[in-house]
Amino acid sequence: PCTKLLVYVSTPGCNGFPSLDSKESCKCLGWEWEGTWLFLCSTVPLPLDLGRYYINETEIVDFPRFPHRGLLLDTSRHYLPLRAILETLDVMAYNKFNVFHWHIVDDPSFPYESSTFPELSKQGAFNAMTHVYTASDVQTVIEYARLRGIRVIAEFDTPGHTLSWGPGAPGLLTPCYMGKAPSGVYGPINPIVNSTYQFVTRLFQEVSAVFPDFFLHLGGDEVDFTCWQSNPEIRAFMTKRGFGEDYKKLESFYIQRLLDIVSSLDKGYIVWQEVFDNDVKLRPDTIIHVWKENRLEYVKEMANVTRSGYRALLSAPWYLNRISYGQDWIEAYRVEPLNFEGSPEQKALVIGGEACMWGEYVDVTNLTPRLWPRAGAVAERLWSNETVRDLEDAYTRLAEFRCTLLGRGVQAQPLYIGYCDHEFGGA
Amino acid sequence: PCTKLLVYVSTPGCNGFPSLDSKESCKCLGWEWEGTWLFLCSTVPLPLDLGRYYINETEIVDFPRFPHRGLLLDTSRHYLPLRAILETLDVMAYNKFNVFHWHIVDDPSFPYESSTFPELSKQGAFNAMTHVYTASDVQTVIEYARLRGIRVIAEFDTPGHTLSWGPGAPGLLTPCYMGKAPSGVYGPINPIVNSTYQFVTRLFQEVSAVFPDFFLHLGGDEVDFTCWQSNPEIRAFMTKRGFGEDYKKLESFYIQRLLDIVSSLDKGYIVWQEVFDNDVKLRPDTIIHVWKENRLEYVKEMANVTRSGYRALLSAPWYLNRISYGQDWIEAYRVEPLNFEGSPEQKALVIGGEACMWGEYVDVTNLTPRLWPRAGAVAERLWSNETVRDLEDAYTRLAEFRCTLLGRGVQAQPLYIGYCDHEFGGA
Repeated sequence: PCTKLLVYVSTPGCNGFPSLDSKESCKCLGWEWEGTWLFLCSTVPLPLDLGRYYINETEIVDFPRFPHRGLLLDTSRHYLPLRAILETLDVMAYNKFNVFHWHIVDDPSFPYESSTFPELSKQGAFNAMTHVYTASDVQTVIEYARLRGIRVIAEFDTPGHTLSWGPGAPGLLTPCYMGKAPSGVYGPINPIVNSTYQFVTRLFQEVSAVFPDFFLHLGGDEVDFTCWQSNPEIRAFMTKRGFGEDYKKLESFYIQRLLDIVSSLDKGYIVWQEVFDNDVKLRPDTIIHVWKENRLEYVKEMANVTRSGYRALLSAPWYLNRISYGQDWIEAYRVEPLNFEGSPEQKALVIGGEACMWGEYVDVTNLTPRLWPRAGAVAERLWSNETVRDLEDAYTRLAEFRCTLLGRGVQAQPLYIGYCDHEFGGA
Repeated sequence: PCTKLLVYVSTPGCNGFPSLDSKESCKCLGWEWEGTWLFLCSTVPLPLDLGRYYINETEIVDFPRFPHRGLLLDTSRHYLPLRAILETLDVMAYNKFNVFHWHIVDDPSFPYESSTFPELSKQGAFNAMTHVYTASDVQTVIEYARLRGIRVIAEFDTPGHTLSWGPGAPGLLTPCYMGKAPSGVYGPINPIVNSTYQFVTRLFQEVSAVFPDFFLHLGGDEVDFTCWQSNPEIRAFMTKRGFGEDYKKLESFYIQRLLDIVSSLDKGYIVWQEVFDNDVKLRPDTIIHVWKENRLEYVKEMANVTRSGYRALLSAPWYLNRISYGQDWIEAYRVEPLNFEGSPEQKALVIGGEACMWGEYVDVTNLTPRLWPRAGAVAERLWSNETVRDLEDAYTRLAEFRCTLLGRGVQAQPLYIGYCDHEFGGA
C-alpha cells in the first residue's frame, strides 16, 4: 500500500491545506489519505516565542503496519480533566496513535453524564458538579480527536466493574447475601431480571448515538462470581436454566443478550479476552482484546483467538501504568505482536494494539510524564516495519522526540541522564 | 525536650509574627524555637481564590524524634531549574524536613558556577548559559531554605563522580591508559600530584564560604580503581608508598588529605559509607551516610558505624528515585532506623536520615509527582515517635495531605484510587 506522497506547506502560512487550529497559528495539519490520517506539524510556535519552525517541500513515503494503534485512559479510578484528555490527544497524534480507548466508567466512579439516566453520574461521580464529563465535554473530545485522525472508542464495561452504577440505577446490581439476608453490598449487574436488559438497551442506545465510531468496547472482564453465588434468586435461576455451578454460563447468558442488543444498534464490538475465554457466542467480526498477563499467557491467547478466526488486539505487554525503575520503555519496544504460533491468515487477524494507562495510581498530576515518551515506544512498534528494532537508534529518536515534546509544552519525562536545549517550562 | 507552645495568629493579618512572604499575603510563618524551626501556615490563598483558610488560637505540643531530616536532590544527572528547587523547599517545610542535601555536581554535568574556577561550569555544565546555578541562584536557595528552617548541605563528591570537572580543570583527573599510552579517557581525581590538593583547597575554600552550614558533604562513594590501575605513574606511586595492590589505600590517602583541608576550614563533614568502610582515619565527629543497599547490609552497617562511635545518617531504604508499581510509600514508612543490634549509646548516634531523589530518570517534568507525597512517609518516620506506625492511619493522613498540597498548587501524585475536592490545576 505504498504510494509517494508529496507534502508541501507554504511558509509561514498554510494556504491550500485544511488548518486544524487556525487560532493556534497553523500548529498542526492533518488530512485523510488512503484510509489513514496523516499529520504534519508546521510553524510550531515555541513556548517562549523564541521563534518558529519552518519546513520545506518534502517527500514522505510512510504507512502504518497495523491499522489499530490505540491508547487507553481510565477516567473512573481518577477523574482526568478535559484539558488533560485533549493534551493527550495532541501527543497521540504526534505519535501516530489513531484510537483513543476511553475507559470512561468503572467501579470507583461514573463521570459520564448520561442524558437518559442522569442519576448515574449524579450519584456515581466523585463529584457530580466538578468530576463529570458533560455532553459538551464528550463532543469536544470526539471532535478534537477526529481533527487529529483519532477515533474515540468508549468502553462501558459490564457486567462487572459497575459498582459506581448502583446508586443511580436501583435494582441494576446484584444484592449480595450474608447467609439468608442481603448484606447491603452489591455485586455485578443482575443478569436474571428483565429490567436489567431494558436499562442496558436504553443506555447503549444513547452511547451508540453519542459515540459515532462503529465500535463500542463492551468490557466483560474480571467478573467476580462470589456475589452471584451468595444470592438465592440467582442460584434458583441457575438451577432452572440448568447452568449447575458454572457461573461462566450465567456470565455468557448476560453477555450474549448484551451483544444482541449492541448488534441491533448497528455497532461492532470489542470485548476483553474473558468473553472469548468463556465461550460466549460471538459475531465473527468481534475483536478480542488480549490483556492477560505474562508473556507465556498472552502469546498463547493471541494464537487461540486468531485460530478461532477472531480479530485480536494486543495490550498485555503494554500496561504502561505498571512502572518499574529504569528504562522500562525498552521492554515495551521489544514486543513483537505477531510472535506467536499461527498461520499467515492468523497473523493477518491481528489488527494492532493499545497502550493502557490504568488509573489506580494515575491522575492529572502524573499522567503526562508517565505516558510520554514511554507510549511512543508502543506507537513505533505499531506503526513501523517489524524490522525496525535497533534499541540505540530508538533511544536516539525517542530522546530527541522528548525534547521536541518539551518544546511543545508537553511534560514528558526523561529517558535517562541528559538535557534538552529547552527544558519543560523554559530552561 | 517537650514544652508547650502557644501559637496564635490574628486573622486575617499576621501582626506580631515575622511573615516570610509578605507579598504572598502571609502564606507561611516560621520561627526558631529551641533549636528547631517551627512553621505555621495560615490564611493560605487557594489557587482559584475560592477563599482563605483561617486558624484559631491553638496549642501545639510536638517535637522531632531525629534532628537531621533530609532530602537529597541531584542536579547533575539532570538540571533542575531554580523554581523547582524552591518549590521543593516549600513542600519540605510542610513535611518538616530540615536539611536540603544538594548533590550539586557529578559525572554528567557541573552546573555550579564557581567564582574561583569559572571554567568548571563553562566547560562542565550541560549549557553554560541556561543550565547553571549562578552565585545569586545559590544565595536564593540558601536564604529561601533558611526562612523555612532548612539547612543547605552542599555535596561536592570526590575523588570519583567528577568526570564533568575534567574539561574545566586540566590536570585534575587521572588519565587512563590503554597499554602504554593514554587512552584519552579520564578517571577519578588524580591523587598523586600536588596540583590536585592546591585545586581542592581553593575550591573548598570557596564552597565553605558560600554555604554557611557547618557541614559539607564530601561524597567519597563508588571510586572505580580500573583507571588508576592502568596509569603507570599511579602504579609507581603505589609502589613507592608501599600500598601494594590495595587501591583503597590510595583512596584513603586522598580522602585523608581532603579531610585535613576541610577541617582546616573549620567545617564538619559528612561522607558516604565507603569512606568508613575503607578505614580512612576520620575525625570523631564525622557523620557517616549509609546508602548501601539491601536491608541486611544497611542494618549491619548502621551497627558497625555506631559501634565505632561515629554518627550515622540513614538513606539506604529511602532511595525514592527507585520507583515500583503500587503503594511503595508503605515500604519507606515501615523502616525503623534504630532497628539494628547495638547499645542505647549506639542508637543515640543515629542523627536521622535522608530521602534521596537521584536524577538518572528525574528532571523538572517528573520530580514533584515522584517526590510527593511519597517523601512524606520518610518525613513522618523521622519526625514522629517510633510508635506511630499504623498504616491505615498513615494512609488517611497522607491522602488528605496530598489534597492539601494540590490546593497549594503542588503537583503531588495520588496514593491510590480516589479524588480531591480541588484537583491539580483546578478541578
